[in-house]
Amino acid sequence: MSYEKLHEHFRRLGQLQEVAAIVEWDQAVNMPQQAGNSRAESMAGLARLSHELLTQQRVGDWLLAAAEQDDLGDWERANVREMQRLYRRATALEPNLVEAVARADKQSEQAWRRYRGENDFAGYAPHLEEVVSLHRQVAMALGEALQLQPFDALVDAFEPGVVCQDIDAVFAPLEAELPALTDAVIERQASVGFTQPEGPFDTAAQRQLGLKMMAAVGFDLSRGRLDVSHHPFCGGVPSDVRITTRYDESDFTSSLMGVLHEAGHGKYEQGLPHRWEHQPVGLARGMALHESQSLLLEMQVCRGLPFVKFAAPSIREAFAGSCARQPAAFTLENLTALYSRVERSYIRVDADEVTYPAHILLRYGLEKQLIAGTLPVKELPDAWDSDMRRLLQLSTAGNDKDGCLQDVHWPSGAFGYFPLYTMGAMIAAQLYAAIVRAVPDLEASIERGSFAQLDEWLRQNVWSWGSCHTSTELVERATGEPLDPRYFLDHLRRRYLPN
Amino acid sequence: MSYEKLHEHFRRLGQLQEVAAIVEWDQAVNMPQQAGNSRAESMAGLARLSHELLTQQRVGDWLLAAAEQDDLGDWERANVREMQRLYRRATALEPNLVEAVARADKQSEQAWRRYRGENDFAGYAPHLEEVVSLHRQVAMALGEALQLQPFDALVDAFEPGVVCQDIDAVFAPLEAELPALTDAVIERQASVGFTQPEGPFDTAAQRQLGLKMMAAVGFDLSRGRLDVSHHPFCGGVPSDVRITTRYDESDFTSSLMGVLHEAGHGKYEQGLPHRWEHQPVGLARGMALHESQSLLLEMQVCRGLPFVKFAAPSIREAFAGSCARQPAAFTLENLTALYSRVERSYIRVDADEVTYPAHILLRYGLEKQLIAGTLPVKELPDAWDSDMRRLLQLSTAGNDKDGCLQDVHWPSGAFGYFPLYTMGAMIAAQLYAAIVRAVPDLEASIERGSFAQLDEWLRQNVWSWGSCHTSTELVERATGEPLDPRYFLDHLRRRYLPN
Repeated sequence: MSYEKLHEHFRRLGQLQEVAAIVEWDQAVNMPQQAGNSRAESMAGLARLSHELLTQQRVGDWLLAAAEQDDLGDWERANVREMQRLYRRATALEPNLVEAVARADKQSEQAWRRYRGENDFAGYAPHLEEVVSLHRQVAMALGEALQLQPFDALVDAFEPGVVCQDIDAVFAPLEAELPALTDAVIERQASVGFTQPEGPFDTAAQRQLGLKMMAAVGFDLSRGRLDVSHHPFCGGVPSDVRITTRYDESDFTSSLMGVLHEAGHGKYEQGLPHRWEHQPVGLARGMALHESQSLLLEMQVCRGLPFVKFAAPSIREAFAGSCARQPAAFTLENLTALYSRVERSYIRVDADEVTYPAHILLRYGLEKQLIAGTLPVKELPDAWDSDMRRLLQLSTAGNDKDGCLQDVHWPSGAFGYFPLYTMGAMIAAQLYAAIVRAVPDLEASIERGSFAQLDEWLRQNVWSWGSCHTSTELVERATGEPLDPRYFLDHLRRRYLPN
Repeated sequence: MSYEKLHEHFRRLGQLQEVAAIVEWDQAVNMPQQAGNSRAESMAGLARLSHELLTQQRVGDWLLAAAEQDDLGDWERANVREMQRLYRRATALEPNLVEAVARADKQSEQAWRRYRGENDFAGYAPHLEEVVSLHRQVAMALGEALQLQPFDALVDAFEPGVVCQDIDAVFAPLEAELPALTDAVIERQASVGFTQPEGPFDTAAQRQLGLKMMAAVGFDLSRGRLDVSHHPFCGGVPSDVRITTRYDESDFTSSLMGVLHEAGHGKYEQGLPHRWEHQPVGLARGMALHESQSLLLEMQVCRGLPFVKFAAPSIREAFAGSCARQPAAFTLENLTALYSRVERSYIRVDADEVTYPAHILLRYGLEKQLIAGTLPVKELPDAWDSDMRRLLQLSTAGNDKDGCLQDVHWPSGAFGYFPLYTMGAMIAAQLYAAIVRAVPDLEASIERGSFAQLDEWLRQNVWSWGSCHTSTELVERATGEPLDPRYFLDHLRRRYLPN
């Protein structure tokens, strides 16, 4: 009985979240500028209402009673566990602290947009100090309630069950091996060279190519859309997945791969168990697993030679004029070279997969110190510059705009999120290796444009499980072993340093 | 104290309605087809939650206490009256009925989109039967609670305070005089003739012209948008007004006037009192008054000679190629003739203002019988055909797509809405006559593209009042007399049968 009440209650919460997801997408894609204040208030009102529904006393009572029920199947028990998790996190914090955090995060993000434009870290610092101080309080209170270390309690919001000990164990080999590997790749690519295709590349043609490739890799456009926003993302809900991109008329390559990256997120959402729609156990697991699905499609599949062979004719057809003027830019060799360029650079979101982990190691190290209180905010620019020199051989001294002010995460209060990007890359490599073992002709299929076997494996081993297992459990069940960074390092060597 | 609690409670309800309005717009403009079921469920869930919030016992207690408060101003008292109205309507219905209606309406509307395309009334009929049956239950329950006749209780949802007796009184002169007037106009126009502009008219050029004209008549595009949907409408909220249209590449005239019609609705929304945003008294009054604002702009202003003089250069510029090939189609005389053509036709939304009331008389008569249960749904196509022959001298036998399946209203559960279109036309004519008396050089201003005096009069006399008065009171305050159909009939004679 209690379980049924919980099921109905969380179904209604899930429906509110569906509405919120569509309106959030609308805010990024459609909303006229002057509507911002009214919309922000309405979204805050909806969030408050959801929080009130989640933290009702009767939910706690039902959860206690449901824990005693012995008539539940595996999925129902997992659903109760996820409900319990959401309830414990929501009730662990004093309402005053929740309100103070929400206000500070919002003000800090707005201030960041202004000060970043002016490269003014000193002006922005007081906002970041307040945000760090409040999220330290959150981390302590959550940690106490969940019996976790403070920083682990923050990571747990984004990827349940993952703690720093797990992250540190898989990051250590990257930190040890990537510098030399990166040197070797850059040296090798310097001797090869490539031809940059010259635009302009019509936005409508880029959009058509993106839609064609999305459909080819199995994104279901009858349950989703492709639109334009300033910051590309994958939003919406499993029945209506909203992918966005942005078009650069001088370079078609970044939007195409961006669309395929978001399509990877989108296929995960579309593959979630329909039977558990609007229930906590039916949701995507966590951000590491989500990122593994976008990176599996983008990095493991679409930047590889078999996919580029499949896509090349469509690319040439989409930009037939450019291709006729500059055929050397559209050869298979050149397209493959374009999609596997490696370069040490300042900006994380533009980084290739070889140098990307260095950006993450830097942020992960610093955010742990910020939350622990061992790195004062005012020393952040120097610490960032010092780590950039060590990890990426670049200096951001005097250039905080492209240094510690570049990401929206900390300004908006997202601490503990960054390491999950690179965990996602490692999970993607390990899953892909397992698929290649299970489906020997996989890459031949991809070259023919057939993704059915890939999808079937992912559906059976990842998508259809929703939040039934932790990502750690899921990786082990799917691949037969715990997460091992060797797969990611092996992938990089195979792709970037072939014999 | 009670008033302040009501104010805060209804503010939160208003925020939920803002979210619902954006998601409803999204459903018509963006939603992929397969998302329909999930979305219908979520919208029904949101409706149920709003209904629960509205009907909480404490709201009733606060309303009783607020009615005793003697420290409220006029607006606060009007706000309490509107809250009381909403509370009484909402508490009259069982929550299960509310949710069943919301779900049936959404599913029926989605089914209608499919079956209408296939001209399949028999396929669609079961959906309409369910919707009619549920809305009959609603009408009976509401009628009892509000001490109104069942059908009046439905009309009251769209235009508070208006009952069939009022409608019948102002419709009688139209029914008596329009047939002969229509004959006379058609006979007169047959001897004049016009040149149909030949397309194709590029959709992007039509959109740009629509945006230019919207902005010219004062629609604020920083607080609104123009998009495409199957059935044009004005949605969203005052801070974010979402207008839609559809483009016909063979005929630019209908989309342009459609956009201006919706812009009239949109300007009303944008002109509502900002101080009362998200409060019941701050909402647009009712659909008759809303339609009066769209028809005032479209029919009284934009189809008149002064506006056509203003718009003609922009029209010629937008379609310069067509204009060069066919200059006779773009003369002032021809454009005016195009925008005042009168013809008995099948489709209400394409009808001119002379024959439009006949479309309304038909629907109003049939919907009263559907709700009363005296017309079975399966007999609707024959009844429609019979009334079309009588009122418009046309037959829809075998052509339900252009007959009883043409409108979204009944499929989405809007019964009692149709008569308000023609009430709106009458209000528009009476308001416009009052503006012309108050602003003697109005039409000269319009010819110069200046709409400031028009807007100022409407803002002072209509928009800024929100729901402070009933539409009946508002018309009398604004024009000095009760609604009188003579203004509308005089307008038709002056425009279509000038001496």
